[in-house]
Amino acid sequence: MRIGILGGTGKEGAGLALRWAQNGHDVSIGSRDPERARSRAAELSGQAGRAIGASSNRDAAMAADVVVLALPASGLAATLGELRDACRGKVVVSTVVPLSFGGGRLFTPPALGSSAEEVQELLGPEARVVAAFHHIAAHELSTTGHDIECDLLLCGTDAGAKNTVAELGRGMGLRAVDVGPLTNAGPLEGITAVLATINRRYKVKSSGIKITGLPA
Amino acid sequence: MRIGILGGTGKEGAGLALRWAQNGHDVSIGSRDPERARSRAAELSGQAGRAIGASSNRDAAMAADVVVLALPASGLAATLGELRDACRGKVVVSTVVPLSFGGGRLFTPPALGSSAEEVQELLGPEARVVAAFHHIAAHELSTTGHDIECDLLLCGTDAGAKNTVAELGRGMGLRAVDVGPLTNAGPLEGITAVLATINRRYKVKSSGIKITGLPA
Repeated sequence: MRIGILGGTGKEGAGLALRWAQNGHDVSIGSRDPERARSRAAELSGQAGRAIGASSNRDAAMAADVVVLALPASGLAATLGELRDACRGKVVVSTVVPLSFGGGRLFTPPALGSSAEEVQELLGPEARVVAAFHHIAAHELSTTGHDIECDLLLCGTDAGAKNTVAELGRGMGLRAVDVGPLTNAGPLEGITAVLATINRRYKVKSSGIKITGLPA
Repeated sequence: MRIGILGGTGKEGAGLALRWAQNGHDVSIGSRDPERARSRAAELSGQAGRAIGASSNRDAAMAADVVVLALPASGLAATLGELRDACRGKVVVSTVVPLSFGGGRLFTPPALGSSAEEVQELLGPEARVVAAFHHIAAHELSTTGHDIECDLLLCGTDAGAKNTVAELGRGMGLRAVDVGPLTNAGPLEGITAVLATINRRYKVKSSGIKITGLPA
């Protein structure tokens, strides 16, 4: 698949780019600063053993079949406002987590309930938005060659889009768990606040979660 | 410990009453309808092999060292408004989950961010509120004699209160994971929406969650 990762120079986006490039996908990373994207892509290409592209966020979205948002929650409107046409009809994966690290409340979802629902609002109903990959620690993604001890929880309204995202997770060894419609994205995004707190309290780098009680 | 379970006639409250009575605690269940509490307590006492008390919610809170709220999220103000004095200085465990089963959005937290924070607001700063036990399926609690495959995620501001709650979990074989201050209660309560959706979609009764990546 042709995957465009917007905000792909950050830790989470770069980790996903690395894994998917290793799995044989055509990955391109986008950034507000295309120069920064190029230098990050060069570094990741070396690590992945396969070329990773670099461009503006807009060009990365235009060229992709699957658009992955690894953007900060605070700047969604500025970045996505001009990408409605580039994302029309495409699978759009929101990994965005509305966390505030100022020392007060950590989980600060927008009025719509979740960043993923804000993404859907900004991109319009024709974007096939799936919320996923929030819990897969960047540290795990970037240190390859081992299993990631975490389930891939995902939700969204479009069943076909969820199948595509589940497939992208299985490629890196993740079990996909379907958590229903996009109105459940708030709870999924909130789990990242739980894991971030656990990481700090227990001095670990990559806590994760597994769902128990499912059929084998 | 003397444990008073408010809303103890419901599935979750009754399951907790059963487990804690089996562990040797003095358990009493409260209800708006003391007659209903008595009949439920009689049934549970038989199952536990130890007497479980029954009373009004207010009397259950008055007599307890640890007050456990297994109430519906919608009626908190009505029940807790008159319990401020009964809960003063006590450990108060909120298992309350703000879910709406009308078919629309499942997770519907109050403006304060979580039901647990609403509890703190209603009971005042002297109640030692801990949010916990939301993810331990009633079905698992009520079918005893086996391990429960779920971690006990808890949060709160009072470290001593959290220790007490962790101890109550360990008694039934649960590993406690400290998820920080009460401002993280929203994300914890939201996980119940995730698990309820998984139960329905995968046709299971008691999905749960385990945190991965913690030191042994």
